[in-house]
Amino acid sequence: MLEKDEKEIHRIREIESTNLARDEIRDLVIETKKEVERENDALAEQINNIFKQHKIISFDIVGAIGAGKTALLEKISEMISQKYRVLVICGDITTRVDADRIERHNAETIQINTGRECALNAYHIYQIINNKDLTNYDVIFIENVGNLICPSDFFLGTDKRVVVVSTTEGEWVVEKHPMLFKMSDIAVINKIDLRERLGTNVEKMINDAKKINPNITILTTSAKSGQNIDKLIKYLGL
Amino acid sequence: MLEKDEKEIHRIREIESTNLARDEIRDLVIETKKEVERENDALAEQINNIFKQHKIISFDIVGAIGAGKTALLEKISEMISQKYRVLVICGDITTRVDADRIERHNAETIQINTGRECALNAYHIYQIINNKDLTNYDVIFIENVGNLICPSDFFLGTDKRVVVVSTTEGEWVVEKHPMLFKMSDIAVINKIDLRERLGTNVEKMINDAKKINPNITILTTSAKSGQNIDKLIKYLGL
Repeated sequence: MLEKDEKEIHRIREIESTNLARDEIRDLVIETKKEVERENDALAEQINNIFKQHKIISFDIVGAIGAGKTALLEKISEMISQKYRVLVICGDITTRVDADRIERHNAETIQINTGRECALNAYHIYQIINNKDLTNYDVIFIENVGNLICPSDFFLGTDKRVVVVSTTEGEWVVEKHPMLFKMSDIAVINKIDLRERLGTNVEKMINDAKKINPNITILTTSAKSGQNIDKLIKYLGL
Repeated sequence: MLEKDEKEIHRIREIESTNLARDEIRDLVIETKKEVERENDALAEQINNIFKQHKIISFDIVGAIGAGKTALLEKISEMISQKYRVLVICGDITTRVDADRIERHNAETIQINTGRECALNAYHIYQIINNKDLTNYDVIFIENVGNLICPSDFFLGTDKRVVVVSTTEGEWVVEKHPMLFKMSDIAVINKIDLRERLGTNVEKMINDAKKINPNITILTTSAKSGQNIDKLIKYLGL
C-alpha cells in the first residue's frame, strides 16, 4: 500500500489525466459540445414557452436504470388521473417497455428510442410536441434515459427536474453524481423498503444531496408499497 | 388508449425521431464522433499490444451504478492476490471511493476522475499505463464509469470485457442495453441473493443476453455472499 504523500501525488496525477485526447481532436470535441449545448438550450427555452402557453405543468425525471422512475410514474399517473390529463414521454436506447407499462395506468404515453444516445435532448422533445395537440394535456412527465450522467448536459424545457436514486445503488451514489443533484429541484430516494435488508446509509445520501444543493427538496419513497407517493405528488405541486 | 394500427404509426414516428439536431450540427456531431472513435480504437490496439508484451491479462468491467462492480472486484482481488499482482483502474465522474474500497483487498489501485465524461476511453488508460512500471503487474482490471450506455463507444484495449448487471435493475435491463451485451465476453447477473425478495425474472435476463450475443458466457453471482465468485474467476481464466 502507498504512503499518504505518495497517494496524494497519485491523486493529483489522476485528476490531471482528465482530458486526454489529441489536442486538435480535443478542441473539435469541445467546440462541437458547446455548439450542441447552445442549440439545445435555445430550443429548451422555446419548449418551456410552448408548455406555458398551454398551461401544461412539466417535469423531467432522471435517474439510473433500475432506480424506479417507471414504477413511480405508474403510481403517480394512477393517482392523479382523475384530476389531470397526463402525457408521459419515455426515453430509452431501445424497446417500448416503459411506455407500455405506464400506459396501463391512465396516462397517454410516447416512447422515444434514442439509438445510441445516452440522454434525451430538446430536439427529441420539440419533435414530439410539434406532432401532438397539446390542448389535450395538463401534465407532461418526461422519463429520461436511465443514466445519472448524460442528462445533466441537456435541459429539456420542463418546469422542474426530479432526480431519482434508490437504496440499491449504494450510499455513494449521490456523492458520485453531483451534477444532476445540482441541477434538480427534487431528489427522490426510492426503494426505501429495502433499506434495512441492504443496510444502506440513507442519512449519508440525504446529507450529500443537501451539501451539493441546499435548495433541493428530498424525499424517501417506495414505489412498491406506495410509501410517500402522496407526498411526492404534493411536492410536485399536483 | 390507441388502436393497434395507430400505435404502430406512433412507434414508427418515434423511431424516426431518433436524430433531431439541426442538419449542419448533426453532421458535425457525427463527424466528430467518428474521428474520436477512430483515434480511440487505434490507441486501444496499442494498449493491447503493450499489455501483451508485459504478459498482462486485462479486463474492462462495465455496468450501471450499483450493479456491484466494485464489490465483485473486492472479492476477486482478495481471492487471487496470492497468485497474481493486481492493478485496478477505477473510473468515476468524481471521488475515489471505489479505489479506496478495492485497495483494502490486496490490489493496487488508481482512480481516474472523468469530470463530465460518461465512460473511460483509451486516452485515459494510455496515460495511466505510460506512468506505471507494468512489470509490477500480472492482471489489470479496469472498472469503467457506472453506465450501461456510453462505455460501448470506447474500446480500452483489454483482452476481455465483462458486463455486470444486477437483479435490482429489473428484468428489462439486458433487453434495453443490447450494445454492451453484444460487445462483451462475459455477462454477470449479480445480487442473485435478492432475486426472491424482488421477484426478478432472472431467466428472462439470461435468455435476452443469449439472444443478443449467443457467444456470451453468463453467470449469476452474489458479491455479498460470495456465491459463484470462484466460478467467475475460473471464467476469467485466472
